[in-house]
Amino acid sequence: MKFVQEGVMLDAHVNGANRLFGGKLMEWIDIAAAVEARRHAHHDVTLAAVDALEFIAPVHLNDTIVLQAEVTWTGSTSMEVRVEAFAEYLTGERVLVNRAYLVFVAMDESDHPRPVPPFIPQTAEEQAEWQNAVNRRAYRLARRHTSDSSGR
Amino acid sequence: MKFVQEGVMLDAHVNGANRLFGGKLMEWIDIAAAVEARRHAHHDVTLAAVDALEFIAPVHLNDTIVLQAEVTWTGSTSMEVRVEAFAEYLTGERVLVNRAYLVFVAMDESDHPRPVPPFIPQTAEEQAEWQNAVNRRAYRLARRHTSDSSGR
Amino acid sequence: MKFVQEGVMLDAHVNGANRLFGGKLMEWIDIAAAVEARRHAHHDVTLAAVDALEFIAPVHLNDTIVLQAEVTWTGSTSMEVRVEAFAEYLTGERVLVNRAYLVFVAMDESDHPRPVPPFIPQTAEEQAEWQNAVNRRAYRLARRHTSDSSGR
Amino acid sequence: MKFVQEGVMLDAHVNGANRLFGGKLMEWIDIAAAVEARRHAHHDVTLAAVDALEFIAPVHLNDTIVLQAEVTWTGSTSMEVRVEAFAEYLTGERVLVNRAYLVFVAMDESDHPRPVPPFIPQTAEEQAEWQNAVNRRAYRLARRHTSDSSGR
Amino acid sequence: MKFVQEGVMLDAHVNGANRLFGGKLMEWIDIAAAVEARRHAHHDVTLAAVDALEFIAPVHLNDTIVLQAEVTWTGSTSMEVRVEAFAEYLTGERVLVNRAYLVFVAMDESDHPRPVPPFIPQTAEEQAEWQNAVNRRAYRLARRHTSDSSGR
Amino acid sequence: MKFVQEGVMLDAHVNGANRLFGGKLMEWIDIAAAVEARRHAHHDVTLAAVDALEFIAPVHLNDTIVLQAEVTWTGSTSMEVRVEAFAEYLTGERVLVNRAYLVFVAMDESDHPRPVPPFIPQTAEEQAEWQNAVNRRAYRLARRHTSDSSGR
Repeated sequence: MKFVQEGVMLDAHVNGANRLFGGKLMEWIDIAAAVEARRHAHHDVTLAAVDALEFIAPVHLNDTIVLQAEVTWTGSTSMEVRVEAFAEYLTGERVLVNRAYLVFVAMDESDHPRPVPPFIPQTAEEQAEWQNAVNRRAYRLARRHTSDSSGR
Repeated sequence: MKFVQEGVMLDAHVNGANRLFGGKLMEWIDIAAAVEARRHAHHDVTLAAVDALEFIAPVHLNDTIVLQAEVTWTGSTSMEVRVEAFAEYLTGERVLVNRAYLVFVAMDESDHPRPVPPFIPQTAEEQAEWQNAVNRRAYRLARRHTSDSSGR
Repeated sequence: MKFVQEGVMLDAHVNGANRLFGGKLMEWIDIAAAVEARRHAHHDVTLAAVDALEFIAPVHLNDTIVLQAEVTWTGSTSMEVRVEAFAEYLTGERVLVNRAYLVFVAMDESDHPRPVPPFIPQTAEEQAEWQNAVNRRAYRLARRHTSDSSGR
Repeated sequence: MKFVQEGVMLDAHVNGANRLFGGKLMEWIDIAAAVEARRHAHHDVTLAAVDALEFIAPVHLNDTIVLQAEVTWTGSTSMEVRVEAFAEYLTGERVLVNRAYLVFVAMDESDHPRPVPPFIPQTAEEQAEWQNAVNRRAYRLARRHTSDSSGR
Repeated sequence: MKFVQEGVMLDAHVNGANRLFGGKLMEWIDIAAAVEARRHAHHDVTLAAVDALEFIAPVHLNDTIVLQAEVTWTGSTSMEVRVEAFAEYLTGERVLVNRAYLVFVAMDESDHPRPVPPFIPQTAEEQAEWQNAVNRRAYRLARRHTSDSSGR
Repeated sequence: MKFVQEGVMLDAHVNGANRLFGGKLMEWIDIAAAVEARRHAHHDVTLAAVDALEFIAPVHLNDTIVLQAEVTWTGSTSMEVRVEAFAEYLTGERVLVNRAYLVFVAMDESDHPRPVPPFIPQTAEEQAEWQNAVNRRAYRLARRHTSDSSGR
């Protein structure tokens, strides 16, 4: 099931150049992804990682923002959710402005990780995204190793 | 087209009794309705009235809130939008917690009212809501007259 | 006793057209009304309905907003509160920009409705508003019935 | 004229110990004082100094906060405003929780200081506060000199 | 140890004249000072007074704000913290825009005052600030007495 | 130069489980990184990507949060900034809770990309991070290609 969230860009969300303040969009993306992850897990979730988040086009004051979230991969206790953000103009035209992949862990009542139902990719696109998620995860684990070995 | 907006109840949205702070939900309802009205009008809109907004059931901390908005009536320059808010539990069950009717006016670039495309009710439900909207409007106009004649 | 609340319009409260974002004013109206209802009931209250809320004139950046709230009707456990919002210019002139009627229910410590002290209208204006409140209530109850019978 | 502003303490305003987060009350005090100063000056104002702000008693979750502001002193282009904040309990009892003195300068359209109408203290209390304001101002000017001579 | 906090001025923080809304800076100053006071006391703290807070120069949209906090005086259970706020331009130049002195009391687990470690001023500047703090405290206590005797 | 930003966890930043709401931390990370990037570029910047952001340990109500940002890589018009977030307890102990890498582009006055001064890694750690940044960039470019070829 696709999660959809929408809003209008207000002054409170823009920086001096009337472009969307990035941190505010990141906050909305987290909410959109968390709602979708909770819905899949039927449990509370906690954000573990943001694997890739790209600002593809700017958003401007008074644009409508549309966020769509869907699960792309599941492990034993974790899930990856993709969020795509669109700017929608008054003409009705939509432009992709941001794509992000977030990893959540499902939490039981005593705040420990718990199993999540498997997501079974069906379409060719879903299967390609699953494979991408596997690659992102492998890269993330390798990166963590590298970080440690660089003495940090 | 139905507008859907969702969020998670955080501490920042609750009052001392852990119930949703009414004014915060009203703010979300306004955003959901304005997005739908802009989409119908293909122009900026301004809120003219909230005709009826009822809290049917309480919302609690950590519930997911789902808002759905759709146009129910159009006049020459104004539109009525119905917003329904649901609490969604982790089980997936949804409960209607709020229903509201908001009236917007479409605004042109120099900030004057401008025509909106007509909404044509199709289903029996849409036709019933249209009739309700006509009644709400008649009541609102009558009420305004009464208010004035009561010396206020 | 009249409740009075005031504030200055900041950038954070305006939309792209420098007009007050309606949802933000609705949030302030809810706070003003809830303070007055708590004061009348000597107990916590919960918002049950917004019966009529009309934007009579626009508010602009840097205007001072003045909100006045007073009880207009009481039932056994519920109260109606009228909130009037004024824009006050630097000249001192005040213009009515919004009038709203909100219905609250008083809640006891275990979160159940409890009786409220009666409000006795004294002036002709208070008596006219009480009668209007009775009409609004009748209309609201009738509307709820209509909504249900329309299959929603 | 006394300025009155009121609000209800929500979760979003408290720290971990359920006491009012001091910075949030300071924000409300600034708004209350600025509204009163604008009203006296009939012009925009800018905050120049907070001379003394004391937290006399704690505020707790779900208390009603009442702020009262009044002009206590005027110079040629500046004004002092006293703000008193009260916690109001559901019993109706009010307790003084904070008293603050803020100094504002009136600003003309090109953002330079401009004259303010004189405030003439009438009552004995107003005259005592005027004298206190003169003392506060002398102390502030002396302090500024001391600060500079201490090499900062 | 110096506390340093930084941020960028966004639209949400400015008033109609694109100057920093004073109350927002006061909120940031309180956070900066509280972090430093907690760090010195190794306990929670509560804000008791703001003794002197001066806006020395304006801050504008899109400026970087830098806050520096350090302990200047300790009593048995209270501490004074000085916060200096700077506007930093894109050239790298920094201008002092605000200096404030805040007094905090350390609180134990049952919310009563508890002893704080002594701060021993070392440099000539620290010793001068300590003496200024003693003067501010004497003035504050005298002021409180005057306030009371003026019948308030 | 290291950027340091600090704050205290308030109720308004936590979710139902009293853990930091991830989106709020992401907002703070964006501010910390943007300040550092502006300082390096001596120009406005816009967020292009968040390459890796990992929640390593939870943050709880009333913890002090410390953010440190530093430039790790520069290209012709873009920069990578690493932000590390620590929870600091009242004992003084600090625990790393989050590490993130953000990519910014410097913007000239007409909102086009402009050159940034080169960052020259000096220490072994800085050189290792530079190499990691090069790898992250290569991975990001490859990923973008894969995304496109998967039909999205």
